Amino acid sequence: MTATDTTTTATDTTTAATDEAAVRALLAEETESMRTRDAERAVAHYAPGAVIFSLAPPLGSRGRTAGSVRAWLGGFDGPVGIEITDVEVAVDGDLAFAHSLRRMSAVPAGAPEGFAFWYRSTTCLRRTRGAWLVVHEHTSTPFHMDGSFRAATDLQP
Amino acid sequence: MTATDTTTTATDTTTAATDEAAVRALLAEETESMRTRDAERAVAHYAPGAVIFSLAPPLGSRGRTAGSVRAWLGGFDGPVGIEITDVEVAVDGDLAFAHSLRRMSAVPAGAPEGFAFWYRSTTCLRRTRGAWLVVHEHTSTPFHMDGSFRAATDLQP
Repeated sequence: MTATDTTTTATDTTTAATDEAAVRALLAEETESMRTRDAERAVAHYAPGAVIFSLAPPLGSRGRTAGSVRAWLGGFDGPVGIEITDVEVAVDGDLAFAHSLRRMSAVPAGAPEGFAFWYRSTTCLRRTRGAWLVVHEHTSTPFHMDGSFRAATDLQP
Repeated sequence: MTATDTTTTATDTTTAATDEAAVRALLAEETESMRTRDAERAVAHYAPGAVIFSLAPPLGSRGRTAGSVRAWLGGFDGPVGIEITDVEVAVDGDLAFAHSLRRMSAVPAGAPEGFAFWYRSTTCLRRTRGAWLVVHEHTSTPFHMDGSFRAATDLQP
């Protein structure tokens, strides 16, 4: 909308609601992809050069490939659980961002039992040729700055 | 811009460049605020209900107050160094997001020497009544998922 356009029409409101729903649906794909261990599905909505700040090193990387997701899934047996909550979405024009709290639950390959921890995620998207793509994603846990430098994987929302 | 408006005018380009410059200048405020230990300056561009995912627990919190920044600065002697690099900014309408790599250097209060580590940051902004405000910020280090769960504070870009 231009600086002089201060009227929100019914169409603008519908469009905004549609955009938010599309972004929420895209975020939910992570849950389904990890549950079904579908690496192709997991990366389907990521732009090729997306900047990724993930749970594990390195500091940052570019792109999310089915190969890397497959390799990561190889470290776990069975479905990987990704529960997504506290989702907030903002959209304007062809840009959007969202943040959420997430709980990952998984069984390390060959281990007798699994683990679970809460973490947080920020997703930044751009609509290109009508389709929303993730261009940046930041996923992390906090860490204890009390000298121990232990990742804070024991937190609850 | 509406779906039928595919022409990028000189004014659009100038506006986009101006917006990006404004966002970059806002990010640079963190460096100056921490160097001069100015808590008021540090929070000046944060929306009251901004959702903050920070280096230390909790998972998430709302708002960034001068009081909390002052308390955090109290844990360090002298200027706190925040070097910001690899900044990428996206803007559309009244929404923007940026990500960057950062190096924090500081001397814990009373300690004989300081420490430094690289981390990453994602900043999400909304322009309200002409002014850009941070509505969400996510700051973190990765952690080693090799069982040690140690924060990865030894990484370089």
